[in-house]
Amino acid sequence: MIKFIEKDPYAPIQYSYEVSRILYHKKSKFQDIMVFANPFFGKVLVLDGVVQITERDEFFYHEMLVHIVLNSHPNPKKVVVIGGGDGGTVREVLKHKSVEKVFFIEIDEDVINVSKKFFPSVASGIRDKRVEIKCMDGAEFVKGRRSDIDAVIVDSTDIVGFAKSLFTRNFFRAINQCLAEEGMFVTLSESLHFHKDMVVEVQKTMKSSFPVVDLYTAPIATYAGNWWSFSVGSKQLDPREIRRTGRIRTKYYSPEIHRSAFLPKDMYERLLSGKLGW
Amino acid sequence: MIKFIEKDPYAPIQYSYEVSRILYHKKSKFQDIMVFANPFFGKVLVLDGVVQITERDEFFYHEMLVHIVLNSHPNPKKVVVIGGGDGGTVREVLKHKSVEKVFFIEIDEDVINVSKKFFPSVASGIRDKRVEIKCMDGAEFVKGRRSDIDAVIVDSTDIVGFAKSLFTRNFFRAINQCLAEEGMFVTLSESLHFHKDMVVEVQKTMKSSFPVVDLYTAPIATYAGNWWSFSVGSKQLDPREIRRTGRIRTKYYSPEIHRSAFLPKDMYERLLSGKLGW
Repeated sequence: MIKFIEKDPYAPIQYSYEVSRILYHKKSKFQDIMVFANPFFGKVLVLDGVVQITERDEFFYHEMLVHIVLNSHPNPKKVVVIGGGDGGTVREVLKHKSVEKVFFIEIDEDVINVSKKFFPSVASGIRDKRVEIKCMDGAEFVKGRRSDIDAVIVDSTDIVGFAKSLFTRNFFRAINQCLAEEGMFVTLSESLHFHKDMVVEVQKTMKSSFPVVDLYTAPIATYAGNWWSFSVGSKQLDPREIRRTGRIRTKYYSPEIHRSAFLPKDMYERLLSGKLGW
Repeated sequence: MIKFIEKDPYAPIQYSYEVSRILYHKKSKFQDIMVFANPFFGKVLVLDGVVQITERDEFFYHEMLVHIVLNSHPNPKKVVVIGGGDGGTVREVLKHKSVEKVFFIEIDEDVINVSKKFFPSVASGIRDKRVEIKCMDGAEFVKGRRSDIDAVIVDSTDIVGFAKSLFTRNFFRAINQCLAEEGMFVTLSESLHFHKDMVVEVQKTMKSSFPVVDLYTAPIATYAGNWWSFSVGSKQLDPREIRRTGRIRTKYYSPEIHRSAFLPKDMYERLLSGKLGW
């Protein structure tokens, strides 16, 4: 049997997958891109040795990254997606009828092209008229922009290498400045099982820029540690509250999941003060 | 680097762990027992090639297996624990002051002895006066017993090999008969990510014996698929409701976690009717 063994420097459990076929494997200007087929997960996209999405379970991540912030915003019109070259995040954003414009900022054009070819149901929204693709650094795009964006969604690789610039104090400050008064920001922040210290660091760095900061989780089998966390920041609105009634078609996300995904408040406080006990 | 590679025939992702030392490795009458040390998880107990508990994260599983049913029962006095030779489940049961008697039914005495030696903080409750150890088949213990037990907790290995007898219609019927009117039953039922069909099968088999059947989950990094499920059965009481006010010391479980651990009702119905969409 041919095995793909994941190369995640921070994961205390190493994951490996059966490979039925290698469909694509090439280095882009930025990273090593591979697509392989697995009997359970279908096609799997790998960047620099780490699994990004699989056909079978990508919706857990994409739905949970997008719908919490877009449903707690009263009327999101202009959305920025940074990273997420596979297009799954953009696809979910477009489910919200209020959205008029999506700036889709992906540094690596090759990821977009690979996704269009091998993951058409994930990349499906990329050609929508509301989407403007810009192949550039997300930090450059938001820098100097002022108060016209309703939501910024960061869908990057793990917090290593060139993705690190998307987790700095300067980046968070620039995002806060480009958001309108009711604006919302969300980013992945690794696993509560494996990377608790990183989660806390992202939260604390965000608190220097956003008056409201919170944390929610989702179970994602293909990300190391699985109990995956998302960090939300906003200028005033509480992301735990749902402010929209329109229904969107989802497989995992629902209003009940929205509410139960956030850590209980006392657990959240214990996490931030280092008193979680594990 | 020395690696332990887990042998789980049902898992589409294979997990492997760094081994800093092998502390114990012997075949018992029933299974292969190993204890190794890992830099992140501390000591790890392995039965027949599958990780059972780790020092670092065992409390997620043990707390969630025990406190949902014991806190939804109004006054649990007599409890049966089947399996769980490491003692972690018994330790959690004993945190409830109402409990007067614990029948601890573990088929493999060697697991108890290995745990006492290598996991003293997990095995800590085994010597308590309220605990009666019986090294026998759990199915034999409950057979023919009538209506005097408040909770039965099954803490077995995966649903393969000799543990299979703990997931049959006959076994569930015997448990229902040994439970008092307000009695509660809980058992592990594998991962919602990896073993959805098994989860549904356990649920449906339980419905043939219990008027009330439900499902909740917890994030457990060291069990394949991680999004771990627990199946609850009762004669009348809804396990989603908390009926006790006494506080117990826990690291993960809390009343908020109790409520959010259950699947939203519509997702639960879609799971059972095969309409989950994944």
